Amino acid sequence: MARRTGRRPGNPDTREAILAAARSTFAERGFDGASIRAIAAAAGVDPALVHHYFGSKDKLFLAAMNAPADPAEVVPTVLAGDPGRIGERLIRAFLSVWDSPAGTPALALLRSAVSNEWTARLLREFLTTQVLRRVLDHLDMDPTESPLRGSLVASQLFGLAMARYVLRLEPVATAAPETLVGAVGPTVQRYLTAPLDG
Amino acid sequence: MARRTGRRPGNPDTREAILAAARSTFAERGFDGASIRAIAAAAGVDPALVHHYFGSKDKLFLAAMNAPADPAEVVPTVLAGDPGRIGERLIRAFLSVWDSPAGTPALALLRSAVSNEWTARLLREFLTTQVLRRVLDHLDMDPTESPLRGSLVASQLFGLAMARYVLRLEPVATAAPETLVGAVGPTVQRYLTAPLDG
Repeated sequence: MARRTGRRPGNPDTREAILAAARSTFAERGFDGASIRAIAAAAGVDPALVHHYFGSKDKLFLAAMNAPADPAEVVPTVLAGDPGRIGERLIRAFLSVWDSPAGTPALALLRSAVSNEWTARLLREFLTTQVLRRVLDHLDMDPTESPLRGSLVASQLFGLAMARYVLRLEPVATAAPETLVGAVGPTVQRYLTAPLDG
Repeated sequence: MARRTGRRPGNPDTREAILAAARSTFAERGFDGASIRAIAAAAGVDPALVHHYFGSKDKLFLAAMNAPADPAEVVPTVLAGDPGRIGERLIRAFLSVWDSPAGTPALALLRSAVSNEWTARLLREFLTTQVLRRVLDHLDMDPTESPLRGSLVASQLFGLAMARYVLRLEPVATAAPETLVGAVGPTVQRYLTAPLDG
């Protein structure tokens, strides 16, 4: 069957209708509040067809976002190893995605989120539920602190993307990845694990 | 005379022509490379008229950028006092501009810079020559390190603006300014004054 060759399965119109329904449903209800059933209803298809085309809700979300990488694959490599160097590994992984061909859709997503409130909501949901939640759960931190810690990490990641790829501020724009890992990794580490009041 | 009442002097068409010429000249040549003479020539007016309307090159740049605040006024308040707390004072000043009505043009400028390469160049020049240069000169740091330190500070400021005002990521979006001063100030301080290799 064609599905096994790597081609996308099914009717392209149906597939696109499901993705459009997924984008609006995830943006309206958030990742946790959006069900496959609701997305299928919005697309006018059977829920089984959504599962058939996209697999899990996670995978559907990645496809709907045109996500540059799958956090379910990347985040475990960040978490494995010395917990005192998660910040460095997160910056290294972030740069390796953005410096690769996957950086092109990542940049398009960031630009779109700045001008479009619905894309901003999707990006916020993506970052919160797919990336930060995985990291914060692993660190087993005080749950009253984890949202602030997560959004501080996000602030530094967004800022790094803005300085390196959008505004192209030198020397951050062309610095070797390891220079930035050494400089910015400890910031992320502090946001994740150190006291935050100065 | 009308100029003394606070109204903008001169012919509005001439004024707008000078601002348009200033934007393109600053974007093309950078702040340091753009002369009042070249801007006047591009606008088809006498250089004396540019001085008459806008005063200094610094003031013309602020007007051309529609800058939300004048760094010549804000930066000295950041630099005055304990040099170990410049990071905190910089975040406090940054938030006080962005949280005020001046935040509206600031946000417009950031959005525009993301989608428009010329505005991105102007914003980069503004940040580099009007804000960061003043801070870095004051700290008298190793000149081989100051560009990296400056662009790292910029990365955290851009990221804070993105998280708080553009993507509205909670709780950074609605946190009290002093919470962010305590959390992000030390990051900026480290980028300015601490060793950067981890």
